[in-house]
Amino acid sequence: MDLGERLKLTLFGASHGPVVGAVLEGIPAGTPVDLPAVQRELYRRRPVGRALATKRMEEDLIRIESGVEGGRSTGGPIVGVVENQDVRRAPYRELEDVPRPGHADYPARVRFGTAMDLSGGGIFSGRMTVGLVFAGAVARGLLAPHGIDLLAFTRSIGGVEASEAALDRPMTELRSAAAATEVSCPDPEAGPRMIEEIERARREGDSVGGIVEVRADRVPAGVGEPFFDPVESVLAHALLAIPAVKGIEFGAGFKAARMRGSEHNDAFYVEGGKVKTRTNHAGGVLGGLTTGMPIVARVVVKPTSSIAKPQESISLSERAPRQLVVKGRHDPCIVPRAVPVVENLTAFVLADLLLQGGYL
Amino acid sequence: MDLGERLKLTLFGASHGPVVGAVLEGIPAGTPVDLPAVQRELYRRRPVGRALATKRMEEDLIRIESGVEGGRSTGGPIVGVVENQDVRRAPYRELEDVPRPGHADYPARVRFGTAMDLSGGGIFSGRMTVGLVFAGAVARGLLAPHGIDLLAFTRSIGGVEASEAALDRPMTELRSAAAATEVSCPDPEAGPRMIEEIERARREGDSVGGIVEVRADRVPAGVGEPFFDPVESVLAHALLAIPAVKGIEFGAGFKAARMRGSEHNDAFYVEGGKVKTRTNHAGGVLGGLTTGMPIVARVVVKPTSSIAKPQESISLSERAPRQLVVKGRHDPCIVPRAVPVVENLTAFVLADLLLQGGYL
Amino acid sequence: MDLGERLKLTLFGASHGPVVGAVLEGIPAGTPVDLPAVQRELYRRRPVGRALATKRMEEDLIRIESGVEGGRSTGGPIVGVVENQDVRRAPYRELEDVPRPGHADYPARVRFGTAMDLSGGGIFSGRMTVGLVFAGAVARGLLAPHGIDLLAFTRSIGGVEASEAALDRPMTELRSAAAATEVSCPDPEAGPRMIEEIERARREGDSVGGIVEVRADRVPAGVGEPFFDPVESVLAHALLAIPAVKGIEFGAGFKAARMRGSEHNDAFYVEGGKVKTRTNHAGGVLGGLTTGMPIVARVVVKPTSSIAKPQESISLSERAPRQLVVKGRHDPCIVPRAVPVVENLTAFVLADLLLQGGYL
Amino acid sequence: MDLGERLKLTLFGASHGPVVGAVLEGIPAGTPVDLPAVQRELYRRRPVGRALATKRMEEDLIRIESGVEGGRSTGGPIVGVVENQDVRRAPYRELEDVPRPGHADYPARVRFGTAMDLSGGGIFSGRMTVGLVFAGAVARGLLAPHGIDLLAFTRSIGGVEASEAALDRPMTELRSAAAATEVSCPDPEAGPRMIEEIERARREGDSVGGIVEVRADRVPAGVGEPFFDPVESVLAHALLAIPAVKGIEFGAGFKAARMRGSEHNDAFYVEGGKVKTRTNHAGGVLGGLTTGMPIVARVVVKPTSSIAKPQESISLSERAPRQLVVKGRHDPCIVPRAVPVVENLTAFVLADLLLQGGYL
Repeated sequence: MDLGERLKLTLFGASHGPVVGAVLEGIPAGTPVDLPAVQRELYRRRPVGRALATKRMEEDLIRIESGVEGGRSTGGPIVGVVENQDVRRAPYRELEDVPRPGHADYPARVRFGTAMDLSGGGIFSGRMTVGLVFAGAVARGLLAPHGIDLLAFTRSIGGVEASEAALDRPMTELRSAAAATEVSCPDPEAGPRMIEEIERARREGDSVGGIVEVRADRVPAGVGEPFFDPVESVLAHALLAIPAVKGIEFGAGFKAARMRGSEHNDAFYVEGGKVKTRTNHAGGVLGGLTTGMPIVARVVVKPTSSIAKPQESISLSERAPRQLVVKGRHDPCIVPRAVPVVENLTAFVLADLLLQGGYL
Repeated sequence: MDLGERLKLTLFGASHGPVVGAVLEGIPAGTPVDLPAVQRELYRRRPVGRALATKRMEEDLIRIESGVEGGRSTGGPIVGVVENQDVRRAPYRELEDVPRPGHADYPARVRFGTAMDLSGGGIFSGRMTVGLVFAGAVARGLLAPHGIDLLAFTRSIGGVEASEAALDRPMTELRSAAAATEVSCPDPEAGPRMIEEIERARREGDSVGGIVEVRADRVPAGVGEPFFDPVESVLAHALLAIPAVKGIEFGAGFKAARMRGSEHNDAFYVEGGKVKTRTNHAGGVLGGLTTGMPIVARVVVKPTSSIAKPQESISLSERAPRQLVVKGRHDPCIVPRAVPVVENLTAFVLADLLLQGGYL
Repeated sequence: MDLGERLKLTLFGASHGPVVGAVLEGIPAGTPVDLPAVQRELYRRRPVGRALATKRMEEDLIRIESGVEGGRSTGGPIVGVVENQDVRRAPYRELEDVPRPGHADYPARVRFGTAMDLSGGGIFSGRMTVGLVFAGAVARGLLAPHGIDLLAFTRSIGGVEASEAALDRPMTELRSAAAATEVSCPDPEAGPRMIEEIERARREGDSVGGIVEVRADRVPAGVGEPFFDPVESVLAHALLAIPAVKGIEFGAGFKAARMRGSEHNDAFYVEGGKVKTRTNHAGGVLGGLTTGMPIVARVVVKPTSSIAKPQESISLSERAPRQLVVKGRHDPCIVPRAVPVVENLTAFVLADLLLQGGYL
Repeated sequence: MDLGERLKLTLFGASHGPVVGAVLEGIPAGTPVDLPAVQRELYRRRPVGRALATKRMEEDLIRIESGVEGGRSTGGPIVGVVENQDVRRAPYRELEDVPRPGHADYPARVRFGTAMDLSGGGIFSGRMTVGLVFAGAVARGLLAPHGIDLLAFTRSIGGVEASEAALDRPMTELRSAAAATEVSCPDPEAGPRMIEEIERARREGDSVGGIVEVRADRVPAGVGEPFFDPVESVLAHALLAIPAVKGIEFGAGFKAARMRGSEHNDAFYVEGGKVKTRTNHAGGVLGGLTTGMPIVARVVVKPTSSIAKPQESISLSERAPRQLVVKGRHDPCIVPRAVPVVENLTAFVLADLLLQGGYL
């Protein structure tokens, strides 16, 4: 039910309940908790200020109920709560009987019956990712002193991809380039075209998917727990729990299927006494353990399932066809909002693995 | 350290130690354990009989030390052991100092020092997958009475892909078609070309990667554990622990990045009182819960990292360049051998999720 | 970090922080949650109204932040929070350097340093048991429909013991008899003498210990998880986590050391088609599994460590002797307040084991 | 299903199956594993050589299948197997229908049906403790370099108790005194009387119980995991999983019920710069954390349930009374055999807690 081994994350609340929140256990006593920085990560996740996103307005101010005193963790569970302010339940009533295509409505009804309120997605809502960002942002307090830095960014939206050249830059440059666009894409040429792609989808009552890439620099070599918690497994487990993520790949990823071993194998060399590899097709992970090279992963985010276009569905009670027009306020593309979620959740996973390996 | 929640799998042994084995806990007392069927699954994993694979010969006869009596589980841990017969340590000595590119050697040395014997990959070897097949094959005894059927097959090797048409067939047809080729590909046209691709790689002292697809039919709707064990997360966790797997996708997978919501959303309809979807871009999973449609996942298997060609590496002790020629006996393509591993490990994961959800 | 397998309990907050609370996961969707009954159990734990107890006044009103809608669980985590109202930190300042004998102060400083605020015991305070009562009271909603009933009561305080005769009565009679005294003892003769014992200790600036017994009726046979979660292990794990509990015994308990097998073994017989035993020296558990007879356990509660009398301690910073006079407001005997904690925590443990065994 | 957090122990096999064994995970790579010392601990558990015990003869030679090379752990799971040699199933047939009083037969039938072979107790047999001794003996390899030493001994059998004076000695003296008697009691006066007590019980076709005490010296202060793995909880969980153990107490234990706080509180003082307490009523644990003083725990072992005397039982199939005469070979008192189990299992628990706390 929880995520993590040495760190444990539990999410609570629901999209249209009074709050969403998270309990984070295992942060060692005395770890600095930079609450303004945590709040900034939560702001990155908000749609506010994005012309492109949902009209639902939430302040997403975090309230710490437990576990932090004087800017440091006490060693007990850290509980963060965000009030849901802009809650409107009415638009979701119909969905109790007519499941939205592409959404959890149908299987959730089968499994949990009507006890579970699915307004706004209930516990399946993207709003639950508030807790993922919160936990990861706190966990970064464990990574920063070791020089470990992370960045996620939008790699593609619909048919528009960032160019390899634009992405082949140091993390600090990528960070500022990504921050300069509304879609968190570090390619200044592709960014505006991505925005057009999203606006076109919105105008057509439709939505569009994309790919988020995350990188982590300066993770020491040897991190990961062979059978059964290799780095890829643990990261995939976490990132695929983000709503709408449907796949993940590391390094060369699916391209490895077409590669020869002589091409995919990253040759070792020594530079300044440090072991490095000339390429990084492994994405910084060999045999489930980090190599000391940057960790590189990519996830695919499916197009938002809630769209304005009429869709073919059914009445569950009558077992009969129904045309469905989804009301409510929805993002035509959640890829940019997934960026800080992927980044901070990756931080959480790495901090947990570093703790397990005795690195922290 | 273990895999699973209600079922628990632990692997032990090492590639060139006396045995490899597995402990499987949580199989309810009285579950039928069809040992000949388990042995057949292990045979599928063997290179024996494949002209294309490693020359290492292992009988892979399973010995049950505990947990099965009279063809049924006792409720205690089931321990299966396979003796390693064809063990040759000599070829691996050099690797203690000169890590093989693409292999776990380097990070494992950093993490575990020289205490861990890495002959033949040690605990990172593909030979450890014996235990995965064993556990999954036993777990199928929980699925079969519910009509749940699984099949994995080779979807592509190098540049050769099975055609969509050849794969758009019922599982029983796919199974016999896949069994008819040495590469476990159900496309009779692509299979021979895949074999050529592998032989070409071998002749050139190289290796080649590919893609394995797995499907599971008749899994009931609602299976999966929201936050944090959705079906995709749990399957990804398990399958990415298979050596050489570097990515996973569900349903439309990475193609979803380029799709519109109106296209990706699978429309609901009712047939014979049963809720179905017209397409299956979701791969049988929405909101982390099964939909009742077939589960479809694909994993990418990187080209075997042990290749005959000379490679650029380093001496760890001298921090100096070394050319490495890997000796030992290796598969030029492990994709076909990964097929029964993916299939049986998927069975293990589904049985565990079904137990968690109270379905079994 | 959490308690439980299928149910998971996490406590948060601290004695003199803004709140104490608990997260309870695993309550199946649709389980009735009787909030007034939960609140009543919390009231039983309060010192308010007891002439004998601490002067600290807390309302202990529970606020549900998540997981309950319309009197039923949603299937998500249930979060309950109680505000700390009567917080006074000043009395505890001195303790940062001079540890109280019999209290966690010293080892907590060694382990967690000064990052952990130990005011009022911090996370080691008896106040954290609010969360235990809350979780157990919610879990009773799973037990009641199966006729399972629980009762804890005070068995002894100091030298005063309830008589066997007074305790050899049906649970409903014991319950009302226990409710009739301030010390929760069902023996109307012993109760007043216990109160005298406590008042004597208080007058002398001292404290006194005692024994709490808990019984559970109508738990079905077969509950428990052999290696390593037998009923005794799991109950002991939970109950020994209650501050001040230093031992536990089941059935005949430590008296078994002096018994012969022919005396301790409970003879089987059949009554009304049901298997019973003539005695219950096993305390309702054989081989770690319930027998269907009442579960009977006893825990010893040490005398409150915070006493008014001057005590011999040390200054940690100066490594020199210090006389310590503990200020603050403390119970001279916490045995009666431990009663609802033991009772509800036992309910939590049994509900978890019943879920694990597929009984619920 | 497993025991432990950072260390994980799984037991497999059964009393009258081909083997009993254990899987021990989490021993860091490179830890010395002194196999002769492990074997010696297993010999301590054997009845062989004890005139007083069962006639069943087992060599109990441990075979390591995995995880140890060249006297050190590899970091992978350590699997130890002991063959069952002297297996006789016939005596147990009758028990399938007529449960032995005081034994797991009845609840195990209710829970697991007839799939579970209960010959010789099956997985509930004392023979499973082979794995506990094995795991603990290996775990001692983690404790010894830190000077942590452990000893368990017989404190009482039936009505015969060791004197306080005889037990108030350094651990090394206690160890040699205990080794000098067949009953592992360090009191040279009480030992022979305990043997008489056991022989009297045997002659009468009966059995007798007793108390085992365990002490651990030089465990550093601060070990334990507040909510929910305090030292008492974790030790109790483990030790109550030993068949026949029905209670546990720490330090003053149940005597604390009659004590005043001023008496029970252990006064702090400083000696040689080290913080100590004048008494040790806490048994080395305050607030669930170790104090640096010796850990002291006592468990009660009930009289062996399998006795020669005729007993009142029932036929489960006929729901009718049956007189039962238990055949097979049984110890009239298992207290001395429980001694090395308690001692080594305590070592396992402490090693696990030390690992969790980052002490190792």
